[in-house]
Amino acid sequence: MRATLIYGAGDVRVEEVPDPRIQEPTDAVVRVLRSCVCGSDLWPYASKEPSERGARIGHEFLGVVEETGSEVSGLRAGDVVVAPFVWSDNTCDFCREGLQTSCRHGGMWGGDALDGGQGEAVRVPQATGTLVKLPVGEDSEPLPSLLTLSDVFPTGHHCAVTAGVGPGTTVTVIGDGAVGLSAVLSAKRLGAERIILMGRHKERTDLGRDFGATEVVAERGEEGVAKVHELTGGDGTHAVLECVGLSQAMETALEIVRDGGTVSRVGAPQYGQVPMGGSTFMRNITLTGGVAPARAYIEELLPDVLEGRVEPGRVFDRTVGLDEVPDGYRAMADREALKVLIVP
Amino acid sequence: MRATLIYGAGDVRVEEVPDPRIQEPTDAVVRVLRSCVCGSDLWPYASKEPSERGARIGHEFLGVVEETGSEVSGLRAGDVVVAPFVWSDNTCDFCREGLQTSCRHGGMWGGDALDGGQGEAVRVPQATGTLVKLPVGEDSEPLPSLLTLSDVFPTGHHCAVTAGVGPGTTVTVIGDGAVGLSAVLSAKRLGAERIILMGRHKERTDLGRDFGATEVVAERGEEGVAKVHELTGGDGTHAVLECVGLSQAMETALEIVRDGGTVSRVGAPQYGQVPMGGSTFMRNITLTGGVAPARAYIEELLPDVLEGRVEPGRVFDRTVGLDEVPDGYRAMADREALKVLIVP
Repeated sequence: MRATLIYGAGDVRVEEVPDPRIQEPTDAVVRVLRSCVCGSDLWPYASKEPSERGARIGHEFLGVVEETGSEVSGLRAGDVVVAPFVWSDNTCDFCREGLQTSCRHGGMWGGDALDGGQGEAVRVPQATGTLVKLPVGEDSEPLPSLLTLSDVFPTGHHCAVTAGVGPGTTVTVIGDGAVGLSAVLSAKRLGAERIILMGRHKERTDLGRDFGATEVVAERGEEGVAKVHELTGGDGTHAVLECVGLSQAMETALEIVRDGGTVSRVGAPQYGQVPMGGSTFMRNITLTGGVAPARAYIEELLPDVLEGRVEPGRVFDRTVGLDEVPDGYRAMADREALKVLIVP
Repeated sequence: MRATLIYGAGDVRVEEVPDPRIQEPTDAVVRVLRSCVCGSDLWPYASKEPSERGARIGHEFLGVVEETGSEVSGLRAGDVVVAPFVWSDNTCDFCREGLQTSCRHGGMWGGDALDGGQGEAVRVPQATGTLVKLPVGEDSEPLPSLLTLSDVFPTGHHCAVTAGVGPGTTVTVIGDGAVGLSAVLSAKRLGAERIILMGRHKERTDLGRDFGATEVVAERGEEGVAKVHELTGGDGTHAVLECVGLSQAMETALEIVRDGGTVSRVGAPQYGQVPMGGSTFMRNITLTGGVAPARAYIEELLPDVLEGRVEPGRVFDRTVGLDEVPDGYRAMADREALKVLIVP
């Protein structure tokens, strides 16, 4: 089959690789119907050291079960399924607590030993725990929105949930990428009273307004902080959803969160330290969030997607075939595309 | 009257100062029955720049109302009251949310403009909101335990509450000072299943065992981390209560907290940065806590103190008169005393 490999910064290739096959009795093989490129894929695309040997990449996919191992239950060939971006047994203590990203028998897609999502098919370890069956056909209309259940929508949701967003909460979302927009959608869905979106790409913040943003702040850094303070009488907002992952975004978040409030982060941190000294202590600021246990949220979010109450798939603004994946990376890196859908 | 002033590192003096008097209609004057020295007083005692002019110090006191301003309600001369370590109106939005430390009309004791607790009397701003009347007499037996309601007990409680401690929670408390021991007591009171106390002063950790610690780890740094991992099957504990405020304690906390768990800090941070990069992100670690809104908790904690179900006053292991306060500072700084009670 063909699949996407990354060889280094700016060097993504689609190549012939071995067909996936059942290796463990808990495996399934899934033929990919839809995949996509994640903002987090852009970090290695920007900085990975060149290597002779490519690594498989892609961690968001939706597909059709082709084969199941002898210990797989609840799934059979022909089922349409979505995979969260971390695989997990869904039975260990962490999984039972809803933290499938820390599963004792789980792991990440891609790399040297496993298939990535950006290919024609994937061997899925711990298939019973990992895959969620979808009550749709292969040609279902909302496949793009259903695909977002693998990562970007539950990631935005995780950010809002861990920040304690609910009715009456005031929220600032930092970042107008696909995760930030999903965080807006999630905050709105959870009843936030006010959602300030910080982002400077108009077509993206316009989608953010459609998703529920009540105000947009295009300024960054100290100017952005001043603007949010101006909008909130100097107090900041109860919750700040940090959907970028850069130091400056985290610094901004800590300055615009209201006393007693919460900064939740889902942008993969490109920093090692967080400036949480005396001021955040005196103001009782909480920092939470982290890599989203998408698996924990899929059943909860699914009905709203199936019934069209939310359309998180609107973050996809370009569709490519497998051969065009390298150009899809380039388009996202150059900000030509918000999020690229792959139809293998 | 006489009161304590700090002139610089190691330089605490008891001097004659003007008697407090009502300045605002919302003031009260309280004659101090009991005060004490706080671990946080030891930071300026260790490092304050020398000054020609002393600053008033002390923020924990319990006393008798002597006089009230015309707008003070619910209090009258003769009432025995305890003051939280931050004064507040108890009516603004932050106060109503239980964050009196961010009160819009509140502030801290001592300094240049206000009385400190370590003196014979105190002018109390926002007296109606600040002071809590105690149903006891001036010679009540549990005055030391009641005095802890001003800071150290609610601080331990805040740490445990913000960390989400409840029945079934496993907890590590870092620090065997008065705050750490109060955190042990609070975690036990809230139903923690297991409480590991990290401290190396046996007489203190023995009191920690009386307060509810189930295990004691005397090792620090990497050895301490290894020991807690050994005790917890490599997982760490759900909650880590960081009651020190130094970088090393925070680093330890982040290494011994279980995935998905919470580090809560109440030790005044002597650091500017917290190492919360990729690892804490992947493990979904939350950092919370901060300066404790003691006022929010006093009514809740009071009955257990009055009825003797908890004895937080056991943290006092030395009693001094006002003239001996400088020696009390020295004794605490030298670790001769755990916490010094002052009877002016």
